[in-house]
Amino acid sequence: MTTEPEVTEQVLSKKALKRQEKQALKEAKKAEAKSNQQNQQHAVHWSSVLAYSTETTPYGVIPFNGKVESRTFSKIKNLNSNQKGEKVWLRGRITESRCKGSLGFVLLRQTFYRLQLVVDANNCASKEMIKWLGCLPIESMIDVYGTIVVPETPVISSTQDVEILVERVYCISSACSELPFQLKDANRVDTEDEDSTIIKVLQDVRLDNRVLDLRTYLSQAIFRIQSEVCKLLREFLIEKEFIEIHTPKLLPGASESGATVFKVDYFSNTACLAQSPQLHKQMSICGDLERVFEIGPVFRAENSNTHRHLCEFVGVDIEMNIENTYFELVDVFDAMFRYVFQGINSRCKNELLIVSEYNPFTPFVISEKTPRLTFEEGCNLLREAGVDIPEDLSNFDISTEQERLLGSIVKEKYNSDFYMMLKYPLKVRPFYTMPDFDEPEKWSNSFDFFMRGEEILSGAQRVHNYDLLVKRCQECGVPEHSLRDYLNSFKLGAPPHGGCGIGLERVIMLFLNLGNIRKSSMFPRDPKRLSP
Amino acid sequence: MTTEPEVTEQVLSKKALKRQEKQALKEAKKAEAKSNQQNQQHAVHWSSVLAYSTETTPYGVIPFNGKVESRTFSKIKNLNSNQKGEKVWLRGRITESRCKGSLGFVLLRQTFYRLQLVVDANNCASKEMIKWLGCLPIESMIDVYGTIVVPETPVISSTQDVEILVERVYCISSACSELPFQLKDANRVDTEDEDSTIIKVLQDVRLDNRVLDLRTYLSQAIFRIQSEVCKLLREFLIEKEFIEIHTPKLLPGASESGATVFKVDYFSNTACLAQSPQLHKQMSICGDLERVFEIGPVFRAENSNTHRHLCEFVGVDIEMNIENTYFELVDVFDAMFRYVFQGINSRCKNELLIVSEYNPFTPFVISEKTPRLTFEEGCNLLREAGVDIPEDLSNFDISTEQERLLGSIVKEKYNSDFYMMLKYPLKVRPFYTMPDFDEPEKWSNSFDFFMRGEEILSGAQRVHNYDLLVKRCQECGVPEHSLRDYLNSFKLGAPPHGGCGIGLERVIMLFLNLGNIRKSSMFPRDPKRLSP
Repeated sequence: MTTEPEVTEQVLSKKALKRQEKQALKEAKKAEAKSNQQNQQHAVHWSSVLAYSTETTPYGVIPFNGKVESRTFSKIKNLNSNQKGEKVWLRGRITESRCKGSLGFVLLRQTFYRLQLVVDANNCASKEMIKWLGCLPIESMIDVYGTIVVPETPVISSTQDVEILVERVYCISSACSELPFQLKDANRVDTEDEDSTIIKVLQDVRLDNRVLDLRTYLSQAIFRIQSEVCKLLREFLIEKEFIEIHTPKLLPGASESGATVFKVDYFSNTACLAQSPQLHKQMSICGDLERVFEIGPVFRAENSNTHRHLCEFVGVDIEMNIENTYFELVDVFDAMFRYVFQGINSRCKNELLIVSEYNPFTPFVISEKTPRLTFEEGCNLLREAGVDIPEDLSNFDISTEQERLLGSIVKEKYNSDFYMMLKYPLKVRPFYTMPDFDEPEKWSNSFDFFMRGEEILSGAQRVHNYDLLVKRCQECGVPEHSLRDYLNSFKLGAPPHGGCGIGLERVIMLFLNLGNIRKSSMFPRDPKRLSP
Repeated sequence: MTTEPEVTEQVLSKKALKRQEKQALKEAKKAEAKSNQQNQQHAVHWSSVLAYSTETTPYGVIPFNGKVESRTFSKIKNLNSNQKGEKVWLRGRITESRCKGSLGFVLLRQTFYRLQLVVDANNCASKEMIKWLGCLPIESMIDVYGTIVVPETPVISSTQDVEILVERVYCISSACSELPFQLKDANRVDTEDEDSTIIKVLQDVRLDNRVLDLRTYLSQAIFRIQSEVCKLLREFLIEKEFIEIHTPKLLPGASESGATVFKVDYFSNTACLAQSPQLHKQMSICGDLERVFEIGPVFRAENSNTHRHLCEFVGVDIEMNIENTYFELVDVFDAMFRYVFQGINSRCKNELLIVSEYNPFTPFVISEKTPRLTFEEGCNLLREAGVDIPEDLSNFDISTEQERLLGSIVKEKYNSDFYMMLKYPLKVRPFYTMPDFDEPEKWSNSFDFFMRGEEILSGAQRVHNYDLLVKRCQECGVPEHSLRDYLNSFKLGAPPHGGCGIGLERVIMLFLNLGNIRKSSMFPRDPKRLSP
């Protein structure tokens, strides 16, 4: 009954296509101008839409979701061939549109689900309706009423096995006809291909127009996965009796290094933006909250323009009492990540399929037991691989490049994209890190977790003794005066405790192998980007 | 077998008591100095604790949660008389301590659970151990090993029906002997009583020493309830297919009114701290995320020093597509709050009991159906109560005082501490608020929710048409240039949508009738307070 639009299209010559496009553009512009004019009229004279009813008018503009009869809308993703013959209301975006003469085909989209609308002048519709529909700009939102039909051949660009034979259609929100880029271009898989006829939408163009970029299938999947990851983290932590806290972001002084702090005018004072909830999450532990976590913004005034640094990111911060040793921390965080990874795989199947379609990636592998290396063992593996590592490790930290190499060595050896390294040199960790028991001058009770060779978690047991903490401040050259309230908390009898900080966007980026942290930050902030 | 310590104490004269206290203080100071010295030694010579074992030494200092054998600790709240005779390890704080001669009594605390330790020189302990234990400062953390015993008469200040006959005890973290205030004073119920012999701990003293104040039973309950409220909100929203987003807090311009924005040095630029996620949550809706929420910090540079304003608070921000009318928003948010209120009552029974003990309050009442007034109806109720309200409401907003009065009228009339008011005058709402359909110049599709007569939620349908939005900007005198990215999003075809913003601390404050928002903010920030 319905013709596949792709086939029809191929019959037209390139020239004819161009002519047709030009004409459509002209009409669309005219329609837009008219629609804008209409909208403005309605903005002033609301009463003019009072009489509006989809019962009597089969197509047109519904201004501002106005006073029409109440309708129940269906979701594209829920429609299936068992509903053949049923009438439904749908709201969605015009993704593709081919309307000509007495037949029109529109691909309607809701998030990543798509369905073909058929408008047939010989069946329920009119030529005028088809013409009007054909003039609506791509990305406009329409309300459609029609019958569920099962096509003989499934439509390739549709995600469903049904289509809709349209009886009524209304524009609920018009897009402008000149979009910053076409979604079909933005949805194309990034390749190294230098084919100049393929339009590539560059990262900065995407980010400058992030709202449109959020509508790509990849972004839709990424941010739904990100939401699920937060849910998984909280589920795990709450089940382990952690409570969620909210620490202040406005601080009287730097919470980590003074070099990377944003300064804020605070009435007649100067405040700093929290570089982590470190101080206050520890203080809440000193206040006997026992096990706490926070998922919130973290600010770093670091002038790093890399694929993995942001000036504002979402920190997952955890802090908990320790009963016997800091391995309790490592065990909890290890189990947490394994819960998250398994949860993504089991709950986000559809989103993962979409990511792999638009950003092909090797699935993230975890071994049955997470590999645990000491820092020393990690260094030895690098040495074996020919890397020049100093004999004395007490003031040495592994570089980002070496980390990545170590990641591939570990992957090779243990078949795991996820591993951890423990017992870092004390000198490369913050002042609040608890020194090792056996060699307190050299090692510390600290650890980092890695995904695909990049650090995603940094944690440690903390110093809980006031005198030692002050001593460590002095040794590390950290000014005590700005930490006065924090330090004083330890005079009240602090429980042995430790914790970690995790970069949420990094976890998503590395699990999905996105290559750039800006893809997993909804509105990224870096030294060169403060908008949108 | 064990003597009630309260009884023993009464036998001592006041003078003797004072003498005893003085002596204890002296000893405690000596002990503290010694312990600090020991700690410092240990900080340097970690190896000196290697040989440490609780097997061979029945009491002493365990420095820094050191290399002792691994122990399994019990929770006070889980202990009961069925476990009589069992041996357990416990870690907790010394809350009260009366050690003399061959008998010692210590009240051990974990969050709000308390249990009596009995140290008996004639049964498992030594006089030296009792003397040593008696010198430990209040609030120090100790590890205790002993036998569960069921006392003949239950100990009044204990929350459990068992006590522990101590065999071994170790100081894991020593408090200093001069605390900023005594917890027993901070735990006393605030009264108007002018009894000068009762020590009152004032709000500012509490907040200056917030870590200690967090250990009060009231604070412990408040922040556990707050965590549960966040959980309830998320449960409800995720079940309704909302996804959790994270919007940037660093913005190129003000998100609400320019007058109350904090400015930040952003590399060579100036940024603003987000006064709400308003712009970006709407942009994520324009990006087809359909239903979103965020629970995160919100910054207001408002010089308000009231019981209900903070310069940084936790905003619960929600935004969602609308299918037909903005009543869909009201229905979702109404159901959400009812879910939260019922959830607090059913899941936080213990915490509510504690709050009512230390901050007696009238339980929060909700009626079977939440009262819904229009703004006009609200004004009429106030008029009936004798309040002078202008005839023309189009530029009128109800004052805080009138709101409170209206709250009591509604409570009287509908027996509900929770109600909502709809259809506010357009002129008293932000520029992005959707005007009413029938009288667009006068009313708007907006609403506020109230608890005990105070506003806790503000929401509305938003303008989703670009031209109308620009027009509203101009009418309200809002500069368009700083909103360019936001405005441009509406050129891409924005879905009809709306949402709300909620102040988390206010919800907790009003549910528990705490009287001051600083009690439900862990580390509150106001014009005069930027620390701790």
